[in-house]
Amino acid sequence: MRLGRINTIGWAMILLIITVFSCKEKNESNTNKDTKDGLTLEHPNLILTVQGVKDIRAQLGSVPIFDATLAKVKEEIDAEIALGIETPIPVDYSGGYTHARHKRNFLVLQKAGVLYQILDDEKYAKYVKDMLMQYEAMYKTLPIHPKTRSYARGKLFWQCLNDSNWLVYVSQAYDCIYNYLTEEERQKLENNLFRPFADYISIENPRFYNRVHNHSTWGNAAVGMIGLAMNDEELIQRALYGIEEGDIDYTEKDNDGGFIYTKGKAGFLANLEEPFSPDGYYTEGPYYQRYAMYPFLIFAEGLQNVRPDLKIFEYKDGVLLKSVNALLNLSDANGEFFPLNDGQKGMSYYSRELVTAVDIAYHHGDQDPGLLSIAKEQGQVLLDDSGFSVALGIKNGKEVPFVKKSINLSDGSDGNQGGVGVLRNQDVELVFKYAAQGLSHGHYDKLSYSLYENGDEIIQDYGLARFVNIEQKGGGNYLKENKTWAKQTIAHNTITQNEGSHFGGKYEIGSKHHSELFFYDDSNQDVQIISAKESNAYPGTSMHRTMALINDEGFEKPYLLDIMRIKASQRNQYDLPYYFMGQVLKTNFDYSVPEVLKPLGEKNGYQHLFLEGSTKVENGNSKLSWLNYNKFYTLTTVTNNNDELLFTRIGANDPDFNLRRDAALMLRRKNTKNTIFVSTIEGHGSYSPVSEFALNSNSSITELKVVKDTDEYTAISISHANGTTKLFITANKNSSKEAKHTLNIGEEIFEWSGPYLFK
Amino acid sequence: MRLGRINTIGWAMILLIITVFSCKEKNESNTNKDTKDGLTLEHPNLILTVQGVKDIRAQLGSVPIFDATLAKVKEEIDAEIALGIETPIPVDYSGGYTHARHKRNFLVLQKAGVLYQILDDEKYAKYVKDMLMQYEAMYKTLPIHPKTRSYARGKLFWQCLNDSNWLVYVSQAYDCIYNYLTEEERQKLENNLFRPFADYISIENPRFYNRVHNHSTWGNAAVGMIGLAMNDEELIQRALYGIEEGDIDYTEKDNDGGFIYTKGKAGFLANLEEPFSPDGYYTEGPYYQRYAMYPFLIFAEGLQNVRPDLKIFEYKDGVLLKSVNALLNLSDANGEFFPLNDGQKGMSYYSRELVTAVDIAYHHGDQDPGLLSIAKEQGQVLLDDSGFSVALGIKNGKEVPFVKKSINLSDGSDGNQGGVGVLRNQDVELVFKYAAQGLSHGHYDKLSYSLYENGDEIIQDYGLARFVNIEQKGGGNYLKENKTWAKQTIAHNTITQNEGSHFGGKYEIGSKHHSELFFYDDSNQDVQIISAKESNAYPGTSMHRTMALINDEGFEKPYLLDIMRIKASQRNQYDLPYYFMGQVLKTNFDYSVPEVLKPLGEKNGYQHLFLEGSTKVENGNSKLSWLNYNKFYTLTTVTNNNDELLFTRIGANDPDFNLRRDAALMLRRKNTKNTIFVSTIEGHGSYSPVSEFALNSNSSITELKVVKDTDEYTAISISHANGTTKLFITANKNSSKEAKHTLNIGEEIFEWSGPYLFK
Repeated sequence: MRLGRINTIGWAMILLIITVFSCKEKNESNTNKDTKDGLTLEHPNLILTVQGVKDIRAQLGSVPIFDATLAKVKEEIDAEIALGIETPIPVDYSGGYTHARHKRNFLVLQKAGVLYQILDDEKYAKYVKDMLMQYEAMYKTLPIHPKTRSYARGKLFWQCLNDSNWLVYVSQAYDCIYNYLTEEERQKLENNLFRPFADYISIENPRFYNRVHNHSTWGNAAVGMIGLAMNDEELIQRALYGIEEGDIDYTEKDNDGGFIYTKGKAGFLANLEEPFSPDGYYTEGPYYQRYAMYPFLIFAEGLQNVRPDLKIFEYKDGVLLKSVNALLNLSDANGEFFPLNDGQKGMSYYSRELVTAVDIAYHHGDQDPGLLSIAKEQGQVLLDDSGFSVALGIKNGKEVPFVKKSINLSDGSDGNQGGVGVLRNQDVELVFKYAAQGLSHGHYDKLSYSLYENGDEIIQDYGLARFVNIEQKGGGNYLKENKTWAKQTIAHNTITQNEGSHFGGKYEIGSKHHSELFFYDDSNQDVQIISAKESNAYPGTSMHRTMALINDEGFEKPYLLDIMRIKASQRNQYDLPYYFMGQVLKTNFDYSVPEVLKPLGEKNGYQHLFLEGSTKVENGNSKLSWLNYNKFYTLTTVTNNNDELLFTRIGANDPDFNLRRDAALMLRRKNTKNTIFVSTIEGHGSYSPVSEFALNSNSSITELKVVKDTDEYTAISISHANGTTKLFITANKNSSKEAKHTLNIGEEIFEWSGPYLFK
Repeated sequence: MRLGRINTIGWAMILLIITVFSCKEKNESNTNKDTKDGLTLEHPNLILTVQGVKDIRAQLGSVPIFDATLAKVKEEIDAEIALGIETPIPVDYSGGYTHARHKRNFLVLQKAGVLYQILDDEKYAKYVKDMLMQYEAMYKTLPIHPKTRSYARGKLFWQCLNDSNWLVYVSQAYDCIYNYLTEEERQKLENNLFRPFADYISIENPRFYNRVHNHSTWGNAAVGMIGLAMNDEELIQRALYGIEEGDIDYTEKDNDGGFIYTKGKAGFLANLEEPFSPDGYYTEGPYYQRYAMYPFLIFAEGLQNVRPDLKIFEYKDGVLLKSVNALLNLSDANGEFFPLNDGQKGMSYYSRELVTAVDIAYHHGDQDPGLLSIAKEQGQVLLDDSGFSVALGIKNGKEVPFVKKSINLSDGSDGNQGGVGVLRNQDVELVFKYAAQGLSHGHYDKLSYSLYENGDEIIQDYGLARFVNIEQKGGGNYLKENKTWAKQTIAHNTITQNEGSHFGGKYEIGSKHHSELFFYDDSNQDVQIISAKESNAYPGTSMHRTMALINDEGFEKPYLLDIMRIKASQRNQYDLPYYFMGQVLKTNFDYSVPEVLKPLGEKNGYQHLFLEGSTKVENGNSKLSWLNYNKFYTLTTVTNNNDELLFTRIGANDPDFNLRRDAALMLRRKNTKNTIFVSTIEGHGSYSPVSEFALNSNSSITELKVVKDTDEYTAISISHANGTTKLFITANKNSSKEAKHTLNIGEEIFEWSGPYLFK
């Protein structure tokens, strides 16, 4: 279902009907109602409902995880109340005192409001009221925030974004104490604080508010939430559909380098429509999806409670609920999100945003019992109707493990702009990215990948160059190395051609293109494959990468087979780095190390790499073994006597030590048109520093060979130390499952159907 | 009690009396006795006794941790038996197949022997017998091991050391199946395998056997254990007192660079006498103490069971039991040993050697209930009398937490060769080393330290340069970088003068000297101090370091105050590095970074350091903050305008990537005679990548100042951001607790008694 624009009168009609209808069904309770504009609405109604509060109060003390969360929040808020209220004049960037204080305040307000409803103790309502009145007193005359770095400066914070965070949370607090306040007090807050606040982040900041971007989602939700709490139809409309566009410069960019405006698209529904694929993948990547989930889901919950006719959770075929599932599946064994695009490592489904997401998805979705096991791991629930629903589910023993399987998620609002695939077998996880640009937080990393074992990185994706909220590092904001290093192609495990990034590192070009899935097949658990093509990253060059996660007899763990075919219209230099994590154990090639370390290049990320060792290799296989977290790994790659191998380390031209000193082995092939890169990465064995035993510390692969490579087929043989040899053949043109293939290799004829053969 | 040398006839007399006496007390049991040389001995008698086996069998199934260990060992050994016996012809270094196989065999044999006794199942005895017979068949004609790197090559392994390991374990297996074998079988094994084996590692390898060194301890125990099992008095004497010395070159060194011989000292008792201090500190450091504990304790247990009159556990005032306590106290919060001298990080009290040590110390000591909590953490016990005793203690709920307090351990056989101190408060641990050289595994690191928080390194000690048993890294042996880097002074957190190591890096000189304790005071938990002096590391220069762990109001955690005074007869350059772990967050000084990284020097470890940044500083305080494992740390150091600060990183001239790329900040003071270095290291706050909150991320110290520094007194003021200033005064000449002091600082007069004042 798609919602069109409904005019304000239409909405008022609908609301009238809903309200009248719902009044009939519910017990009259004057203290929980307010009348305004001729409509009657109960409070609370955003994340808690009148019925929900009744249910919760009735069962207090008998629902363990809810009670535990409540006790913890009560202790936290009681301590805060004891400390007194502080609303300092805003001066700092994120990480600074006033930023942290106002951030803490909105979190505290929301919790205090909820405690008032659940515990029915006026002390919490009074605290919320008192702090809101302090804000009201300050806000009336508050100028724009003094820090100037943002494209859209807030008032309480240096960015409108953070002001919007504040309003999303504070709306909930206001809803909770709505009936505790007198009409006069409400008028005061609404007229002097909430409405001006909502206007400031929307009408006065269209560059912030009217975008398709996670910033705007927060803005929309903020305006919408306070609109619902105030029962202000104009604000609700503004939240759902954005504001009227004036004269707009569509080439303008924000601080992150992304375009500010998308023609004709604005408001919450557009933000729900555009960045999510039908599979629920959010085009900026999981880190920002996590960030955006809160306003998406909390406003959706409010809409569901107040405007159930909107059926917001069914919007776009239930994309909001699908997105929660997609996000959970984009985490490693520790629940940490894969750092695709700009993503800070360590962010996980233990974050408060995911507590919200999981609880709301459970309550408003189909009560997936797998979500209960995640909620149990999270160890806390929302103190609202959704959280209570989850807590009851856990209490009743309904949870089953949330099993993360291999998954292929499309990107793009219609699902036709590439995607992200995750292949999983035993403890090994391959994350393969063949997506669209990912808006302003996207990296230039077409057909890149990262590899994990049980939550530890084997081949890493660098992530972002930022220390979020750590003031000492550039005020906690993006560091310049995010652009000069982290976004560049050479920072990723994919091909860099002629030492330049994909799309010339230009967002304008990158955002026009996406890679194309060739095929995805996880039907055979032991040979799972994802294959995709990219033909725009470098004009005149096309890349086709096929990655297979193979669990074969004789191997201790599933290994990765990586085939990268390149067709080019001219001779180029190709660099393919392996950002292996750990310490070099052994190579099967000699190399020399320089006496002094020099940067590998001057731009496009190369200026941040030191060259630590290099060699020219021979025809055959080059092998590197390393040790990480007491596990052994080996890269085997097919090389020829035109190839160079370079040991690199990040850290050159890094005057503030903003980058991690991580290593890579880079395969460089010069002066080449069409070519193929074939590698395997095996995890094997283990070492114990306690027993000092090293088990299975050697690679099992004795030879990796390209036995055929044409435009139609590529065939690779993999020989094991036990004497067996396996053949992997992939079709390069026809990925149909039904297609029948016949291929001669040497004397032998192979016949099969479908895109690949492994035997 | 000290044991003199008793001749063989005297021993035989004593034994006769013991044996006759013990026979009267015990039930006659023909199957458990053997007669030989006119004496009657029961078997088993080394780690299991006849009575112990009876007790264990009677309570099988009712002592949880013992039953669990037994089940696990049974499963392991049953699987091994199913795989069949392999005794390959030895060819490999450690890490290689034959090495690993023979190592596995001796561990398996010992366990199978024990299972035979406990489960009374002949299958295990037969397995032991069969494997021993295979060894017997092979050993008869086995040449010396083909690998030539060792100063004392073994036969089954590349070093006599590993052969000795084998015999220590196999003696136990033999003892367990002694009565299962026929007299003829015993003769065959003893004549063709055990005695030649014992002779080979002793008489034929005096350079290995007759030393004061952990190698010899293994050799002595091996000869002694098989001597006890065979009831061979000559071997027992050889174990206790070594072999007659022939023409000996006392200047000869082993592979590690240590002297081979110590005049007139050899055998197990000398090895117990010499390397242990009266406090139980083992001069090589905890890593090798752990390694040596097994032969010390297992042979001591055998002696205690077979020769209780020797009172081996009372030897040197109970040093063996004290040593277990010392070793447990030399571990961090995770139970990992501080890597003093050559120590591999990660080795911990979860190792099998410490299971032995803890169980034997409990059983043969005074049943310290704190040991039971460690045994419980270890999750396993020895399958013998000691382990059973521990398991019963746990079953009966006797355990109490093993609390690691601050401790000062003397070094040297008489306790007068310096020592190692560990100051502990809350989660912070300071390890301060002012010990003797530590034999061949010692590092040139007088007055060095490392600092931990809750088991994580804040300021690291590098440890060794070796990947023990990982064949890919130099056969698993010491790497050349152990000498060129890890042992050098500049690899440690102490003063390097004129870019040369202590004692010129010469073992001959270093082993003649040790530092001197000035005072140690942990009586006030909130101001714990250790202070020591070193006057031989650099002729003409004396160093006096005082380190205080201070827990003061206004500070979140205890902080370290570090005062290093230097008096020199000439002008020198002093380098004081801080091997901080983590990522640089902020400095309060500007610095420049070079375009290319060059080694900082050419020798003495400097050739392995890259210079990553440098500056000349001003008078005042220089500050560096960093982030590690999501905790913040700040170094504040008093600098003057003669000082340079250098950012260094390990990894130069490291062609095989043998070294970790770890960072340091180095304070360099040139052309200076007498001087003082004063610093604080604070841990503060935390960061969560999940909530993205940074708490208390700034240092609390606003000024650190030397307000007085004379030969008699040093006074430091420490100012806190909250406006308070504290004064720390230490006496530099008189550390008596009783001494009364009066000191004028500016207008103020301070009076106190004892070596320091903090107010």
